[in-house]
Amino acid sequence: MASGGGGGDDDVQVKNKQVILKDYVSGFPKESDFYINTNGTTKLKVPEGIIGVVVKNLYLSCDPYMRNRMKKAVAGSYIDSFKPGSPISGYGVAKVLDSRHPDFKKGDLVWGRTGWEEYSLLTNLVTLNKVLHTDVPPTYYMGILGMPGLTAYAGFYELCSPMKGEYVFISAASGAVGQLVGQFAKLLGCYVVGSAGSKEKVDLLKNKFRFNEAFNYKEEPDLDAALKRYFPEGIDIYFDNVGGKMLDAVLLNMRVHGRIAVCGMISQYNLHNPEGVHNLMHLISKRIHMEGFLVFDYYHLYPKFVEQVLSYIAEGKIVYVEDIAEGLENCPAALIGLFTGRNVGKQIVLVARE
Amino acid sequence: MASGGGGGDDDVQVKNKQVILKDYVSGFPKESDFYINTNGTTKLKVPEGIIGVVVKNLYLSCDPYMRNRMKKAVAGSYIDSFKPGSPISGYGVAKVLDSRHPDFKKGDLVWGRTGWEEYSLLTNLVTLNKVLHTDVPPTYYMGILGMPGLTAYAGFYELCSPMKGEYVFISAASGAVGQLVGQFAKLLGCYVVGSAGSKEKVDLLKNKFRFNEAFNYKEEPDLDAALKRYFPEGIDIYFDNVGGKMLDAVLLNMRVHGRIAVCGMISQYNLHNPEGVHNLMHLISKRIHMEGFLVFDYYHLYPKFVEQVLSYIAEGKIVYVEDIAEGLENCPAALIGLFTGRNVGKQIVLVARE
Repeated sequence: MASGGGGGDDDVQVKNKQVILKDYVSGFPKESDFYINTNGTTKLKVPEGIIGVVVKNLYLSCDPYMRNRMKKAVAGSYIDSFKPGSPISGYGVAKVLDSRHPDFKKGDLVWGRTGWEEYSLLTNLVTLNKVLHTDVPPTYYMGILGMPGLTAYAGFYELCSPMKGEYVFISAASGAVGQLVGQFAKLLGCYVVGSAGSKEKVDLLKNKFRFNEAFNYKEEPDLDAALKRYFPEGIDIYFDNVGGKMLDAVLLNMRVHGRIAVCGMISQYNLHNPEGVHNLMHLISKRIHMEGFLVFDYYHLYPKFVEQVLSYIAEGKIVYVEDIAEGLENCPAALIGLFTGRNVGKQIVLVARE
Repeated sequence: MASGGGGGDDDVQVKNKQVILKDYVSGFPKESDFYINTNGTTKLKVPEGIIGVVVKNLYLSCDPYMRNRMKKAVAGSYIDSFKPGSPISGYGVAKVLDSRHPDFKKGDLVWGRTGWEEYSLLTNLVTLNKVLHTDVPPTYYMGILGMPGLTAYAGFYELCSPMKGEYVFISAASGAVGQLVGQFAKLLGCYVVGSAGSKEKVDLLKNKFRFNEAFNYKEEPDLDAALKRYFPEGIDIYFDNVGGKMLDAVLLNMRVHGRIAVCGMISQYNLHNPEGVHNLMHLISKRIHMEGFLVFDYYHLYPKFVEQVLSYIAEGKIVYVEDIAEGLENCPAALIGLFTGRNVGKQIVLVARE
């Protein structure tokens, strides 16, 4: 049963600013790879015969995986490319303006995949969910309660088989995923060290997220030496968000039966030729379990995850830091900033207040 | 209770040729890194007060892991280095000449760790076992029924979670371990392709071990293209014995939820700077489980393994190819030949017939 929707005298045309990808990107993405289309218009009603919703986008989420969608998809890619000339898409929080879908009604606050534009007509609603918990900021549904949160949860608990007292290292540790992995590990009684790319982030890791130690990798000419300083006994668990040189240095410092969860390799996404990793022989001598993963395989854990994280939030055991830019026109800069580490915490763009 | 041993009139001194490591080796090992000491002597009795056995070495085993023992051990290494100036050691089959240990008596045929010399006084008997099954060649205890066999068994069944119909690729596939992994996979109903370094070995893989396909990697300028030819649908399981460029090409061809058991990286053992592996990002998009292992962690499976393999042998379901050199003085050449692929099948040296 469609609730509301269709026809009526508010079937008006409104302006609809959009963030458009000009063409497939190779190398480091630039702001000029996008443009803001200010000439678009849209209707705020779901057209008759279509099952879907029209939403007003309130917040949009910037996530590293989106880099992959900026290039032409290769056969067997796990995700579609953005379409040059069209608005890009990603996770967001939005308000339903009109619905021809039984699960949603006008006024609902929802989260899931939406377009990078002011208003979106959404017809593939598989990823769309109502915002159920209004005692937390709605932006949490793009971070701690959304895809990055479940990524941290699944990657840490399912892949790393963590145990109390183990030595845990996290790269890009103040990011949307890393900050949660570190806090999960601390709550379990692990010794936790994170790396990040600025003094501000290192302070955040130590003071806000209560990591045992943290360091600025940009100030460490010898990553192996840095890791040996913080892990004289070696590393049991490495939660890898960066790949490349850091992964190579970590391999030298893993303990026997260590585990490496490969969540991301952000240091490599923009390189034409990914760096070589030279120390894989340590996988054998240390009997290391290294596993890549995608959050898409773990959505069955979502209810359990949300329950646990909400109770951690309620008990004040976990905090979450967001970096909120303002205005749709600032979306490209915010997205690109992920790859230079400009964001401090989970990057979000506020598009509209209500 | 010591059985036999001690004193008596056959307490004579005999000549004892030995294979001595001159010094730690860097780069490719050469025959000249060893010398044959022809001046040594030994007594054929276990000295009073010592718990051990004196054995006559019949066969010695050449195994790739021994390369690691030729260099100076680094902290945390899983295995001791050979001692320059002393005879090297490894797996072998030997006859007990004298015993002061309750588990062994004169005349027993045994297998386990021994010295590269004609006669050895063995006092650490943890790895020493009696040859129980005399309906198979005793050399099998250094191969199909020994360390390489258990390596193949544990690596394939425990790490790869293989299923009927899956696509399996094995590098160094005609070697001591690879030939068994391929036959295990075939028995399970997998599609099996192996790579090796000569036409003779490729023929062996196809005709003797009944792999579905095999190719000579030395004749493939583009390993990625070769793998795409044999695995148009991609690879579910890669049993890696070589590392380096082949691993890099395999990563491009893995299927979603693929598994890589890292057993060895023989292409890298002799390099001062191991090659870089560039395609690890595929671990994420394909959600690949990659795990290094050492057979030492799986000796609890030995009884089950032997039972299964003996029945496969008895039923003619599995064959094993050995490459047997003759004479202790040919040990260095046989050992070094592993790193240039000179051996065809499991490399063994016959030291004495009885």
